[in-house]
Amino acid sequence: LRVAVLGVGLIGGSIGLAARKRAGAHVCGFDPDPDVLARALEAGAIDSSASSLAEAVAGAEVVFVAAPVGVLLDTVRAALDAADANCVVSDVGSTKRTLAELAVDERFVGGHPLAGAETSGVEHAREDLFEGATWYLTPGARSSGVLYERLHRLLSSLGACPNAIDAETHDRLMARISHLPHVLANLLVIQAAGMLGEGDDRRLPAVGPSFRDATRVAGASSAIWTDIYLANADSLIAGIDELTAGLQDIRGRLADGQAPAIAAWNERARADRDALFGSGLIGGADGETPLELRVSVPNRPGVIAEIALTLGEAGVNILDLALSPSPDNSQGVVALWVHGDASATRAQELISGLGFPVVQA
Amino acid sequence: LRVAVLGVGLIGGSIGLAARKRAGAHVCGFDPDPDVLARALEAGAIDSSASSLAEAVAGAEVVFVAAPVGVLLDTVRAALDAADANCVVSDVGSTKRTLAELAVDERFVGGHPLAGAETSGVEHAREDLFEGATWYLTPGARSSGVLYERLHRLLSSLGACPNAIDAETHDRLMARISHLPHVLANLLVIQAAGMLGEGDDRRLPAVGPSFRDATRVAGASSAIWTDIYLANADSLIAGIDELTAGLQDIRGRLADGQAPAIAAWNERARADRDALFGSGLIGGADGETPLELRVSVPNRPGVIAEIALTLGEAGVNILDLALSPSPDNSQGVVALWVHGDASATRAQELISGLGFPVVQA
Repeated sequence: LRVAVLGVGLIGGSIGLAARKRAGAHVCGFDPDPDVLARALEAGAIDSSASSLAEAVAGAEVVFVAAPVGVLLDTVRAALDAADANCVVSDVGSTKRTLAELAVDERFVGGHPLAGAETSGVEHAREDLFEGATWYLTPGARSSGVLYERLHRLLSSLGACPNAIDAETHDRLMARISHLPHVLANLLVIQAAGMLGEGDDRRLPAVGPSFRDATRVAGASSAIWTDIYLANADSLIAGIDELTAGLQDIRGRLADGQAPAIAAWNERARADRDALFGSGLIGGADGETPLELRVSVPNRPGVIAEIALTLGEAGVNILDLALSPSPDNSQGVVALWVHGDASATRAQELISGLGFPVVQA
Repeated sequence: LRVAVLGVGLIGGSIGLAARKRAGAHVCGFDPDPDVLARALEAGAIDSSASSLAEAVAGAEVVFVAAPVGVLLDTVRAALDAADANCVVSDVGSTKRTLAELAVDERFVGGHPLAGAETSGVEHAREDLFEGATWYLTPGARSSGVLYERLHRLLSSLGACPNAIDAETHDRLMARISHLPHVLANLLVIQAAGMLGEGDDRRLPAVGPSFRDATRVAGASSAIWTDIYLANADSLIAGIDELTAGLQDIRGRLADGQAPAIAAWNERARADRDALFGSGLIGGADGETPLELRVSVPNRPGVIAEIALTLGEAGVNILDLALSPSPDNSQGVVALWVHGDASATRAQELISGLGFPVVQA
């Protein structure tokens, strides 16, 4: 497999390392900074370095764009211009609607690995950075099934768990599970520091684990996070407004001093937490056998994306998938592997609901 | 050493276990629930069980009240009524102003260990629960130095780091570093769950570590937390109002779309985080030698409390302390151990500032 990585920092470098060592891929890298590119080569993150984006992309079967959010759209566009007709182009940006216009190209599948962050630079790149990490994919209505399959399989071999999601939901979700928690971590440290006055010898007397946990991501890289906050500003503002309403609600219950109202609110949080993290999860349970489903599908763009998005939305994790076209190429069979009986049953229901014949193999 | 523990759940039981095994103390326990008391005896958390609070306290040199916040004040008052003149009485409540009126009794020193929480019950009690944990102490203006020393030394032998703080500051601090983070954890899960609609098969598609960290304490025990929120409602409301203002500030920067304003805000959080957690900490650095300071003090109540509070406020950790009265009992010497040169120098300055002669031994 020939892979190109555009931007070889922590994420791009880790993709290169993992693709070389775990997937046996040949990785060609490009970076606008020649020093970074040289260090990536030295670190073994890439097999070869290209002197231009087009040179890196030429002949590649998979291209990853790991560029900063500010130049991401232009870089992905340049990659699509330079890439072969039979090449899948993806990215690793933290917001996905910014690339939504590229969905007209059947070769583009947006991506976002939930990994990395506390360090940066190819020096910190690790082959196992994506081990067990969710890797969101945002295939569009025209995405090619063959190219989606290739990307999905490569990500699985890197150790990641690919998970299809539509770009709009992805950004709303990230606002609530990542961007807003980062904002709150910042505000909590600003507040705690404010209590201690000014100057260098302010020191928090001592904190329990809950404060450390809540502020672990405070003051993350301004270069990265300013772009992320701005790219998702509308969703983040909506999240802030929701949170502000929630704070006013609990503030009222505290001011009223009514224990039952506070306990009821806390119980709701407990129930919601159990729903989000609880044992009732579909799929992903360790030790359950992978089961294979076979789905008959018409051979047109977007079919795989539709199935992957439907299963992703329902929380059914696709461990692996394989396409086999029929001899006349008019239709095909998709083989899907999922974890355990519950996931398989749910997946069958969902796929039947889409109108495709499905059987357990 | 004779120790009484009133309330033998997770915290009380762990105090009993640690006091027996690490301090060689004889521990007598009482609990209004006879089943709990029997289980504590069986678990080895106490040497003997008393049939009443007064029986447990009789003859004790140290009493810990580990009762729920709702009955805490009455229980501590009953313990003080039953205790000898030469007995120190402390508690483990999460807010400290509620017991402020007891500061008139020189035998009372409020306490709050930052430990435990995710489980409850004597079955989960552990001898090492307090290992390395901050244990806040709130001595009052009349607290006896001899009794404070006894409590400090016992807590150190349990593995904890006793840290003096005034009750008002403690509660304001807890609102910001513990109670508000708990409120936010609840609100974040309620918001994320709300995005997924209603019903049992809601499932968060997948989350990164920042959401898990930020919501680890969501939906903590309603029985415990309702009391804590209400006991500290005024400080918590102040914290909520501050946070709401902070959210409006960042919301405005996002709406304006000005990257420099967002980066500046993030840089402030980074600087504050470094100030709170950074390497500039006084004391507590591993590997630094304990140094001894000797302070001459008049023999009157409150002197030790004054020194401990001053050092605690400045973030200087007192590793151990010992009192030796002069022959005529009119004055005495306090030996204090602190970590490393920086702490020793700072402690000397602070103690001199209080008007007490101090030398490094």
